[in-house]
Amino acid sequence: MMAGGRSLDTIAATCIVTLCLACLHVTSLKSQLFTRLGGLRYTTEPPISYKTLYFDQKIDHFGFLQDGTFKQRYLVADNHWQQPNGPILFYTGNEGDITWFCNNTGFMWEVAEQLGAMLVFAEHRYYGESLPFGQDSYSDVKHLNYLTSEQALADFAVLIQNIKTIVPGAQNSPVIAIGGSYGGMLSSWFRMKYPNIVVGALAASAPIWQFPDMVPCGDFYKIVTQDFAKSGKNCDANIRRSWKAINNVSSSVSGLQWLSEEFSLCSPLKHKNDAVSFKSWLQETWVNLAMVDYPYEANFLQPLPRWPIQVVCKYLGFDATVSDEQLLHGVAQAAKVYYNYTGNAPCLNTSQTATSSLGALGWFFQACTEMVMPMCTDGVQDMFEPEEWSFQAFSDECNSVFGVRPRADWAGTVYGGKKIGSHSNIIFSNGGLDPWSAGGVTSNISQSLVSIMIPDGAHHLDLRYSNKLDPPSVRAARALELKYFQKWIRQAQKSTGTGFTMSKNRKNSP
Amino acid sequence: MMAGGRSLDTIAATCIVTLCLACLHVTSLKSQLFTRLGGLRYTTEPPISYKTLYFDQKIDHFGFLQDGTFKQRYLVADNHWQQPNGPILFYTGNEGDITWFCNNTGFMWEVAEQLGAMLVFAEHRYYGESLPFGQDSYSDVKHLNYLTSEQALADFAVLIQNIKTIVPGAQNSPVIAIGGSYGGMLSSWFRMKYPNIVVGALAASAPIWQFPDMVPCGDFYKIVTQDFAKSGKNCDANIRRSWKAINNVSSSVSGLQWLSEEFSLCSPLKHKNDAVSFKSWLQETWVNLAMVDYPYEANFLQPLPRWPIQVVCKYLGFDATVSDEQLLHGVAQAAKVYYNYTGNAPCLNTSQTATSSLGALGWFFQACTEMVMPMCTDGVQDMFEPEEWSFQAFSDECNSVFGVRPRADWAGTVYGGKKIGSHSNIIFSNGGLDPWSAGGVTSNISQSLVSIMIPDGAHHLDLRYSNKLDPPSVRAARALELKYFQKWIRQAQKSTGTGFTMSKNRKNSP
Repeated sequence: MMAGGRSLDTIAATCIVTLCLACLHVTSLKSQLFTRLGGLRYTTEPPISYKTLYFDQKIDHFGFLQDGTFKQRYLVADNHWQQPNGPILFYTGNEGDITWFCNNTGFMWEVAEQLGAMLVFAEHRYYGESLPFGQDSYSDVKHLNYLTSEQALADFAVLIQNIKTIVPGAQNSPVIAIGGSYGGMLSSWFRMKYPNIVVGALAASAPIWQFPDMVPCGDFYKIVTQDFAKSGKNCDANIRRSWKAINNVSSSVSGLQWLSEEFSLCSPLKHKNDAVSFKSWLQETWVNLAMVDYPYEANFLQPLPRWPIQVVCKYLGFDATVSDEQLLHGVAQAAKVYYNYTGNAPCLNTSQTATSSLGALGWFFQACTEMVMPMCTDGVQDMFEPEEWSFQAFSDECNSVFGVRPRADWAGTVYGGKKIGSHSNIIFSNGGLDPWSAGGVTSNISQSLVSIMIPDGAHHLDLRYSNKLDPPSVRAARALELKYFQKWIRQAQKSTGTGFTMSKNRKNSP
Repeated sequence: MMAGGRSLDTIAATCIVTLCLACLHVTSLKSQLFTRLGGLRYTTEPPISYKTLYFDQKIDHFGFLQDGTFKQRYLVADNHWQQPNGPILFYTGNEGDITWFCNNTGFMWEVAEQLGAMLVFAEHRYYGESLPFGQDSYSDVKHLNYLTSEQALADFAVLIQNIKTIVPGAQNSPVIAIGGSYGGMLSSWFRMKYPNIVVGALAASAPIWQFPDMVPCGDFYKIVTQDFAKSGKNCDANIRRSWKAINNVSSSVSGLQWLSEEFSLCSPLKHKNDAVSFKSWLQETWVNLAMVDYPYEANFLQPLPRWPIQVVCKYLGFDATVSDEQLLHGVAQAAKVYYNYTGNAPCLNTSQTATSSLGALGWFFQACTEMVMPMCTDGVQDMFEPEEWSFQAFSDECNSVFGVRPRADWAGTVYGGKKIGSHSNIIFSNGGLDPWSAGGVTSNISQSLVSIMIPDGAHHLDLRYSNKLDPPSVRAARALELKYFQKWIRQAQKSTGTGFTMSKNRKNSP
């Protein structure tokens, strides 16, 4: 599925490993890794088809010295588009191959006909095939210098202006930005910064407040913990106990060997210190499970059963009298739900927690520059080992890996932090199971900055294809989102004096 | 008055001359030269005092490779500030020495007490003393790379965040952006892009629409012409005739000599081609007069009498039967109103039309990159020789001077062009006499994006100290601006739950 950037795989693989080793103690940096939604589409989903196009994009929108361009990839599906003036649903690509987001944003495909909309999926610079300096894009900080969210938003703006210029009938098309996770942050920021370009935005599972001094750093892991707590008796308590059990068992060479066998590790643990990275890998496993705790069988980070945490928790129901070995046997079984649901994995690889993706390195760089997202644990309100957030440690780590230092306050300054009330036409949707909702907008800010909560939803469930197992909350969310889209489109048509007839529900505004 | 950047004077002087010679045929580029309001303050104006401070500002807000800082100068006057939570009036510095804007923005000083406001005047990077690379700042395009409006706005945002952090009682102070001309454009864009930082903006004489495809390119010179037409019989017609008369007279060596003597030129015209730059200089003279056609004696670009165009036009009342020499004698007398009102100028220098200012070179660079402002003349609706707008010629000129090419559409994309209706709390004030009003917002866009027209006003008259000769329209404008400020401040206090008592007019909202 990862068509783009194959030539960079080698570089990326090396770098990611280096990076992960370098930052083992910086849990928060590791947790910056957003969902790597990949995997196969289900054959029951309708076939999709799109054109793959490339746009000559400026490498630097904010300076005039670097006047080079690169090919930004974007995908267009216009078979349902009502020309002229039909709306454009524009996916603001995040940290990965755009074909992958295209395939995993079924909601857009499902509403295209109803809205008479053209779909555009724009790839984020430095990901997939959209590499400003080709194979050299990740070679050093000089080449990485143009990997920022501001540049990405400018790319989107310039691309849309171009589409409106070159596509007959698109000149007055209202454009709605849609994105999930970091892509959702981008879609909300896109509306905030370029309201001249997009009439509204759906920011799904977008943690725009997961920045310093905006939300408590521990909320993210609290939600992960709650997901486990409610998915099985003693489930969170046993994970909380497991860290000490690992420490105990890993204190001897024979214990390390036992652990390695129990977890079927590809690379056995050899030194006591290996337990640190082993625990880190396990922690990330539980986080990933919380993000993709979907109500139906799906294949994203890994192929998983429906409500995977409930399945995981079946192996973690012990009471407090259990021995370390018994507990860890259960943990191993639980981990294998995530890593070997298919039964085809010969061993478990602790250097990987999700689909390998070029995007990881780019996201690490973004986390080390603008996207400073504090995370912490206390072991009491969450089920993890206590670890404070240290900006200094994080900054030092970034400096040693990339030679850059993050700017803690910049995202809040440039994107408004909690002071976004003067903006309009943004839907912030969040899943109650999704740890990223900790940094999301979970209550209405104004009449046109609205929050849609999906209590039974994990990470941007609403953007996915509808499924017969979808909970009513996500069905309702999607219906409401559609109504807002229709409202924004009508507003835009009114202001430009253009119009076309949407096939359904024209009179139902939110 | 021009305290900053003295060490660069030599470089700048050389470069400006080079630039002006290089772009002689690009009228529009020359016309990019905004008001260089300088000169002495009148002794009748109240004395002002402020602290001069410096902030370590990032050279590049939009990348992480260049991590250097420079000292951004800003001026603070807090003697009327009502601590805590009193408002801050923040001047968004434009292309020049900030002390000069500080001295020429009497309106802010006059309303400070009434609002209990702190005044902050922030210098724009690359001007005055705020030079990112010291003496090397203008040395080449590499060093000029960080001279953009986006970087300047980010400077303002970061500076305000810093002031709110370090000044006790300022944390919840509502900030209002104020600026004139390019500074007014910045203040409006600042509110659009950073509504989290400023609660509103006064954009005085801000031609935010003087960009490609937003307004007719000829409107600017039409307004200049109208100013002359209404200031004296035949005044515009005789200026329109003067170009041909100059062509006729300058076709002989003796004619060139006669012209040079008639105009008391410091450097006599020697070749027929010299007439081209001579006409260009005259054209700029008339433009400058239109910008500073104030109702009282003032000293800006030059020391001038009240309603200077009326004085100029006294020398240009001929009927159509006048000879070329008679006509040009009148033109020379008219030009001397502008260049030698004091009677102290030994000769007229055609390489200068206004106070010499470091800012000119910086502004030329900005015009050659983001600030592409088409201008044209047709000789029919205006009094100038016909000259079409050619983006290509302009771009070639910029490329030969700086090695950069302007981006015609970027300003419209990034700052919204005509699609700014979703923003709020911006006052666009414009003077009916000011040619820059051609590119300004001269009618209301919404309830909170309002236009204030000052029919008898030249370039941002409303920002100046009040004067007993002020027309009622500018008095009314200032009163209305103040009421909007009070409204925005109350809105902000309501939203933060903070407050203080403004000394007057609390109940009069617009």
